[in-house]
Amino acid sequence: MSSNLFKHADSYLTIDLGAIAKNWHHIDAMSSSTCTTAAMVKANGYGLGSGEITQALAKTGCQQFFVASIGEAIALRSTLAEASYPGADIMVLHGVQRGQEADLANNGIIPVLNDLEQISRWRLFAGKAGVKLPCLLHFDTGMTRLGLDHDQTDWLIENPLAYDGLDINYVMSHLVSAEIASDPVNTTQLARFREIRRWFPGIPASLANSAGCMMGPDYHFQMTRPGIALYGIRPSDIWGAALQPVLGWHARIMQIRSTKPGDRVGYNGTFEVARPSRIATIGVGYADGYSRHLGNTASVAIGNGVAPVIGRISMDSITVDVTDLDADSLRCDSARLIHDSYSLDKMASDCGTIPYEIMTQLGQRAQRDYHHI
Amino acid sequence: MSSNLFKHADSYLTIDLGAIAKNWHHIDAMSSSTCTTAAMVKANGYGLGSGEITQALAKTGCQQFFVASIGEAIALRSTLAEASYPGADIMVLHGVQRGQEADLANNGIIPVLNDLEQISRWRLFAGKAGVKLPCLLHFDTGMTRLGLDHDQTDWLIENPLAYDGLDINYVMSHLVSAEIASDPVNTTQLARFREIRRWFPGIPASLANSAGCMMGPDYHFQMTRPGIALYGIRPSDIWGAALQPVLGWHARIMQIRSTKPGDRVGYNGTFEVARPSRIATIGVGYADGYSRHLGNTASVAIGNGVAPVIGRISMDSITVDVTDLDADSLRCDSARLIHDSYSLDKMASDCGTIPYEIMTQLGQRAQRDYHHI
Repeated sequence: MSSNLFKHADSYLTIDLGAIAKNWHHIDAMSSSTCTTAAMVKANGYGLGSGEITQALAKTGCQQFFVASIGEAIALRSTLAEASYPGADIMVLHGVQRGQEADLANNGIIPVLNDLEQISRWRLFAGKAGVKLPCLLHFDTGMTRLGLDHDQTDWLIENPLAYDGLDINYVMSHLVSAEIASDPVNTTQLARFREIRRWFPGIPASLANSAGCMMGPDYHFQMTRPGIALYGIRPSDIWGAALQPVLGWHARIMQIRSTKPGDRVGYNGTFEVARPSRIATIGVGYADGYSRHLGNTASVAIGNGVAPVIGRISMDSITVDVTDLDADSLRCDSARLIHDSYSLDKMASDCGTIPYEIMTQLGQRAQRDYHHI
Repeated sequence: MSSNLFKHADSYLTIDLGAIAKNWHHIDAMSSSTCTTAAMVKANGYGLGSGEITQALAKTGCQQFFVASIGEAIALRSTLAEASYPGADIMVLHGVQRGQEADLANNGIIPVLNDLEQISRWRLFAGKAGVKLPCLLHFDTGMTRLGLDHDQTDWLIENPLAYDGLDINYVMSHLVSAEIASDPVNTTQLARFREIRRWFPGIPASLANSAGCMMGPDYHFQMTRPGIALYGIRPSDIWGAALQPVLGWHARIMQIRSTKPGDRVGYNGTFEVARPSRIATIGVGYADGYSRHLGNTASVAIGNGVAPVIGRISMDSITVDVTDLDADSLRCDSARLIHDSYSLDKMASDCGTIPYEIMTQLGQRAQRDYHHI
């Protein structure tokens, strides 16, 4: 089994755009026809490639996209224009920072306004330009991160002229613990959001992230904003079994060597060979996002076998014990880093983190092989 | 204090190319005039930008560069040609994988040959082409990762015809624990390497990584290969105090909010506010390489004060407690993520890793501001 998917790299990712589209439809079908389903494509589409993913989602019917920064938004506008989806909504979660007004407006990007300063800035710019500019208003209901705080919310409700001249597409908030269905903060946030919403009659609303989508119609309002679930990751243990996997991660077997008992493997010799062994060196390392926490811990799949990672993770390579693999497996030229007995969830857990961080930390050296719809 | 270094991003890196050049000269001066000093620029120059760094190093006198993969090597060849350093040596540590022969030769890239298969492959290609092709021979002396193992080394020494027709620029090996000067594996490796070297009379040799450079002339041979020290990181506690710092990391203050006792901050509300507080939300998150392990742990500097990171690290932002900052500091628009009381070493330690991993995991969204020589 030989693979030319490596090209000039030593690792490659497979990214199933059809699975992303199916996941979007799966989530979209959870909410009513009066609720639209946007897509979170920030951080380069959770590390998997915002350009290709956004084009695939636009093709399948998604028309609303969220990114974090204006830089991401401008890149996405260009991608969508090239792909002949110039009218898709691009919303930027970090809002309008000082000096960004004209660049947002000229690129047709919709800021999520997070405080009174941003509201005032966007309104002032709209006034000068003599146009009604679109925006979302973000009210904090418990996250204490972005969005109007309690006092600012009260003030704004009492001073509606402060947002006069703005075209508020949505009022929104963000859930703190939606992946834990039993956390009482969910219902507290829902109640707070409903209370705020009363002051903006007729304006659509949005609250749900991936896990929120799965909490039922009370949380859906007029737009949901799934992220991680689109990429095939279950937002919690109890939700998302029907999601299609999206990501595969493969690395080149560069060398197979013989070792004898007593040999030590890798930096600082943290693994000692106990029996005559065969060790494969594989072309992925922590610079590619294969975390150092996985040394002497993870496993890879090669052919029909599984080989444990031994020794420290290097910057550009790892070493695995292939002594027990059969001859057919040893003829393979690549290893699967995520496999049936070592999921992305397990990898993240072994790193003391969540799949989101593993994905967004995938390095730039890997080839990306997109399976198109 | 306002900064336009962010451009359309929410974070930026400052990379002092002059400091890298000074560090290279500092290391180069440690070895004799018969020893050249190469530079490790793999993994995109340890995350800081291989193109700019290689150009700066070439300008200051470095003529030999190491990368991991052929993809990195071809990109570097193009960079060096544009900068009018077409003759610099580019050496690829992963050697010649199947099918890479012509691309290596056509781009003037020198493979580090790691096993008999690679030696045979390169020699066969040279024979067909009717030219003598350059290479390095890598002998493993204890790392058990890349390089000829013990049996292969013995075989090669007994069969010198196996490398006939190759132009061996260097024989080399790699140190396992050079950062721990007292580790007996250092002298064991040195002895093994000297023993192997005897069989290749007249061929230059190379053994030392950054920490190896600082272990004295026995370890220098004819070429040293520093990496991390070039980037201003001390390879161990006892070495490298004279190295110049290279990296600065800054992120935008996006919003400052008021909170009251009992408010909880960030995902899953892991931080509870104990007093009336001011909290700043800053535009860097784990997608930018600011690890989730830093939640409720790290600190940032703002103006002349220091603010602790509170709550979880989000994908695109962090929250810090700025209650105790003075008014001048609160007028700043950016935070310094690495600062006098929170070094890159400390950050790495808090993440359970080493500075190398933090650097190579720096994300693509940050602007890069290069201070040229």
